Amino acid sequence: MQWPRYMAPTMALLPQRLLLTLVLLPHLLILLSLGVGGSAYGTKPPCFWPSSAAEDGRCLSWRVMVEANNARGWRTVPAPCVGYVTGYMTRGQYGRDLDGVMDQVSAYVDQITPPADDGLDAWVLDIDDTCLSNLFYYEAKRFGAYDPLAFKTWASQGACPGIPAVLRLFATLRDKGFKVFLLSGRDEETLGSCTTENLESQGFSGYERLMMRTPEYRGQPSSVFKSAMRKQLAEEEGYRIRGNVGDQWSDLQGENVGDRVFKIPNPMYFVP
Amino acid sequence: MQWPRYMAPTMALLPQRLLLTLVLLPHLLILLSLGVGGSAYGTKPPCFWPSSAAEDGRCLSWRVMVEANNARGWRTVPAPCVGYVTGYMTRGQYGRDLDGVMDQVSAYVDQITPPADDGLDAWVLDIDDTCLSNLFYYEAKRFGAYDPLAFKTWASQGACPGIPAVLRLFATLRDKGFKVFLLSGRDEETLGSCTTENLESQGFSGYERLMMRTPEYRGQPSSVFKSAMRKQLAEEEGYRIRGNVGDQWSDLQGENVGDRVFKIPNPMYFVP
Repeated sequence: MQWPRYMAPTMALLPQRLLLTLVLLPHLLILLSLGVGGSAYGTKPPCFWPSSAAEDGRCLSWRVMVEANNARGWRTVPAPCVGYVTGYMTRGQYGRDLDGVMDQVSAYVDQITPPADDGLDAWVLDIDDTCLSNLFYYEAKRFGAYDPLAFKTWASQGACPGIPAVLRLFATLRDKGFKVFLLSGRDEETLGSCTTENLESQGFSGYERLMMRTPEYRGQPSSVFKSAMRKQLAEEEGYRIRGNVGDQWSDLQGENVGDRVFKIPNPMYFVP
Repeated sequence: MQWPRYMAPTMALLPQRLLLTLVLLPHLLILLSLGVGGSAYGTKPPCFWPSSAAEDGRCLSWRVMVEANNARGWRTVPAPCVGYVTGYMTRGQYGRDLDGVMDQVSAYVDQITPPADDGLDAWVLDIDDTCLSNLFYYEAKRFGAYDPLAFKTWASQGACPGIPAVLRLFATLRDKGFKVFLLSGRDEETLGSCTTENLESQGFSGYERLMMRTPEYRGQPSSVFKSAMRKQLAEEEGYRIRGNVGDQWSDLQGENVGDRVFKIPNPMYFVP
């Protein structure tokens, strides 16, 4: 058997078994991605590994429901969607979504009136999975139920990576003269100093105030604590909250939410 | 050159050019689906046709931003996403998303206290792309900018298909004894009778009241008109709005939105 002349130099060098693999493997991959295989999206590149397209579709539905605040009060990622969420967070789409939201924030920042001279134009930013990422922690726990002690151990290390797109927004707001308030449900007494250091090490410096959960709000829903803090800023201290950015709807609803709110994606956990 | 014995009967029969195609085509398909090719998602089956995966990813980001109310005030679907939105609406994922939201509504309905004997427990449902679908109209217009005259012509025909999942919810609410108010920004004077007939023909019967835009609200944002109507229901007529379902955030924000709101997916158009 002869190879066509223009293929000969390459193909003739290939051992037969490798050649056979080259012929068969792509066909197999295509069959598998047509849904012939089982579900293993924990490790597949998008569309090219055994998976159930319908299950991916349901997990996408669930994720969109979370972002639209239709799904509330969930304690863990649905079991069939753990692989999907891992893929979403680590293989590009989360970053793409984050960039999209940051583009919306930037367009809004460019369009609103700049801060007045009285120094009372404020933005409120959440910390966990807004400024600092807990992806490593939650991925290691396979997005299991909230575990306060384990989370405290993780946060105490002060090793949460900053989220670059949010850091850029933070710097823009600060440099434009907005007062940036970082508002976090983390416990002030036990996590105050490590959080301050973590923020500093990741480049979040020059904010107006870090507001963390004081003992009187322990055990209260995040929405209650955060509403109270924003109310204090707006009604007692006279700040105008021009924008508010968080990964949880509990950051963005309630009292004095601000002129406009931006929801950063987070399919990893739900905070009431 | 010899084929391995176990391949010989099949492979030896193949003409060389066909064999070459068999070797190369799958590799080419894989390269194309990895984003090397152009974008043609208007007609591709998911993941299996030349397309730009990155562009699909950006359109997905945009759609999620719409659902999360991060993208506001847009006049048309972004041009590179027209094919993506068509595919989303017509090839299964929209239906899957809708079913997901309806499951959330059902779980909520099952969990809340049933209507009291005073007949004042109400639900508010939007009409366009909540109860009745305008997909045929918007798809034919390739999701172009809002065209009031053309839309009026379409709506006048009274031919909008009912959305089955929402019809089931409607029937459940009505049969449980909730008063269902259908609240629509459609103009009452010109579209009142065709809307009533369209609803009836699609099975939406037994609602408490159809509330459409009266002349005094012409030209006002939907959010203003709908807030005023809900305020009237809640504060003047004493209804308790237990739930509120719409495809636009302007259905679900403002005054007296109800105990809980549900956002039905709609990446086709934005109503302020």
